[in-house]
Amino acid sequence: MSESKHRRITLAAHPQGAPKDSDFSLTEDAVPSPGSGELLLRTIYLSLDPYMRGRMNPVKSYSPFVEVGETMVGGTVSEVLSSNIDGFTAGDLVVGYTGWQSHAVDNGKGLRKLDPDAAPISTALGILGMPGHTAYVGLLDIGRPQPGETVVVSAASGAVGSAVGQLARIKQCRIVGVAGAPRKCRYAVEELGFDACVSHLDADLPARLAQACPQGVDVYYDNVGGKVLAAAFDLLNVAARVPICGMISHYNDSLPPPGPDSLPKFLRGVLTRRLTIQGFIIFDHQHRWNDFQDDMAGWIRDGRIKYREDFVDGLEKAPGAFQGLLKGHNFGKLIVRVGDDPTL
Amino acid sequence: MSESKHRRITLAAHPQGAPKDSDFSLTEDAVPSPGSGELLLRTIYLSLDPYMRGRMNPVKSYSPFVEVGETMVGGTVSEVLSSNIDGFTAGDLVVGYTGWQSHAVDNGKGLRKLDPDAAPISTALGILGMPGHTAYVGLLDIGRPQPGETVVVSAASGAVGSAVGQLARIKQCRIVGVAGAPRKCRYAVEELGFDACVSHLDADLPARLAQACPQGVDVYYDNVGGKVLAAAFDLLNVAARVPICGMISHYNDSLPPPGPDSLPKFLRGVLTRRLTIQGFIIFDHQHRWNDFQDDMAGWIRDGRIKYREDFVDGLEKAPGAFQGLLKGHNFGKLIVRVGDDPTL
Repeated sequence: MSESKHRRITLAAHPQGAPKDSDFSLTEDAVPSPGSGELLLRTIYLSLDPYMRGRMNPVKSYSPFVEVGETMVGGTVSEVLSSNIDGFTAGDLVVGYTGWQSHAVDNGKGLRKLDPDAAPISTALGILGMPGHTAYVGLLDIGRPQPGETVVVSAASGAVGSAVGQLARIKQCRIVGVAGAPRKCRYAVEELGFDACVSHLDADLPARLAQACPQGVDVYYDNVGGKVLAAAFDLLNVAARVPICGMISHYNDSLPPPGPDSLPKFLRGVLTRRLTIQGFIIFDHQHRWNDFQDDMAGWIRDGRIKYREDFVDGLEKAPGAFQGLLKGHNFGKLIVRVGDDPTL
Repeated sequence: MSESKHRRITLAAHPQGAPKDSDFSLTEDAVPSPGSGELLLRTIYLSLDPYMRGRMNPVKSYSPFVEVGETMVGGTVSEVLSSNIDGFTAGDLVVGYTGWQSHAVDNGKGLRKLDPDAAPISTALGILGMPGHTAYVGLLDIGRPQPGETVVVSAASGAVGSAVGQLARIKQCRIVGVAGAPRKCRYAVEELGFDACVSHLDADLPARLAQACPQGVDVYYDNVGGKVLAAAFDLLNVAARVPICGMISHYNDSLPPPGPDSLPKFLRGVLTRRLTIQGFIIFDHQHRWNDFQDDMAGWIRDGRIKYREDFVDGLEKAPGAFQGLLKGHNFGKLIVRVGDDPTL
């Protein structure tokens, strides 16, 4: 899978609603050369994550959006091919944010070297990377679960949700997942140790979730918004916490959903049940990175935290895989294998 | 205004929408006698507060609702007429929660003695009572304003809002109020030291509020919900805090408002701007009572906190005054003078 061309996927159009193939474009040109103070990277793994949908809309948000014609952004694990930067040499493995492309010239500032003996290098995009860090901060610092409390997490088999559930289990909580396909729910319970997992495809979701949470809900870690949030919201106990991590069910909305307006009911619940609803973005929590790395690596080593990766082969598959991600087609952390992994 | 009859106002019907006169009933019977371990109180002042609207609905909330035929609940300042409880004697002045009535037999457990030399006894229902405590905890502990930040408060001339604004001023914030009538806005700016105050009756509310908050909004202390919340929400800065104290604009709703559904947009803002939306009920914060009393009494003494009371004469006026409160007809802390104040 080594490539002699620089291949990259650019945004061909800002999507209306769900992204489609024609919103992406695959371009090829010559592999660039690094200048002074730069290095050349070969992409091994590209992370696909729900937040990328937000970057495709031409609206101001917490990060700049991708302009039409620009390379899609994303986290990557790469090998240094050549380096004009002290401290990096050919063969180094690094995690960075170089986007949907086979190669990248980089100034090294956003790169972190990986030790392939410590963990599989792909985990730097998942359980030991941004998604794991997001689970760690969102649950422990924002959700603040106490032993014996009930924690509900949506997208329970996903990169973030699966870590949230296992962290909550370590914190001695009752942990209830919400996922789609039955095999994902089985995985959460049988492999990850969730106490229960219910499917959002079940028309009786509110009743099933209530059954699974006989003591109500103290932390609802929200990755999806929509009907799962609504079902969990009705079960929230007094003083419950709701970390808002994502809202994948709305990422493709181009217009506000029809009425009635559920915001007043939501706020009435916030008031009468003294809830805390708190949005967070992982970039604000870099001070917790070392704690996260130390704790999570230890829990993986001793088998208390498991993870699952869902690989897709070839950069050209990224647009389709990303469209599937927004529909819940992946099962575990979705990663595109862009080039050969020299550690395997 | 001394009374030889026990007069009380009971709930005649659970209101549909806005309460009307026929939802209340005035009954008279003989003044009761206190038994062993009880005392007899004569009501001097009755507090009218927006939260009472919630108590009139037959739905489970953070406090029991008032059943049809029961006396309406509320905070009161009273004089002890006779006492079979050690520590209370005739002539004592107390603040309690004895409801919309001229007299009450009480076991003394919920009563706190007042020192009429320390402050006018009516202030125990306002600036030195529950509304002041609510402003103090909601702004300082939940809103956590920092010097130089911008704080917006709705119902700015009301019992809670006027205190919030002045506390924010003491904390060296820019303080912007939202009120209804122009005289209320003038009062907030000219008497209370707000930097600006805009009217929610102005069709240009969003633009006016934006003009008044050139640096955005760091704390929005919400007493009202509805369109004022929507206007303030759009101005919230990254990491802003929104204490949810009340939502008077929705208290009379019997159905959810029509669409579109604004909750997804709200949650998207919570996520991308990392907002904290936190409901609170003052009962949960009794541990801050002494701090509140010490601080607030000091600030009143040195003139840094002012307050305004809006008196209505006669228990029979309570239903009408309460209906007006929900429409914003009062100007300052609304209090019913039920009986003579012996300290005047």
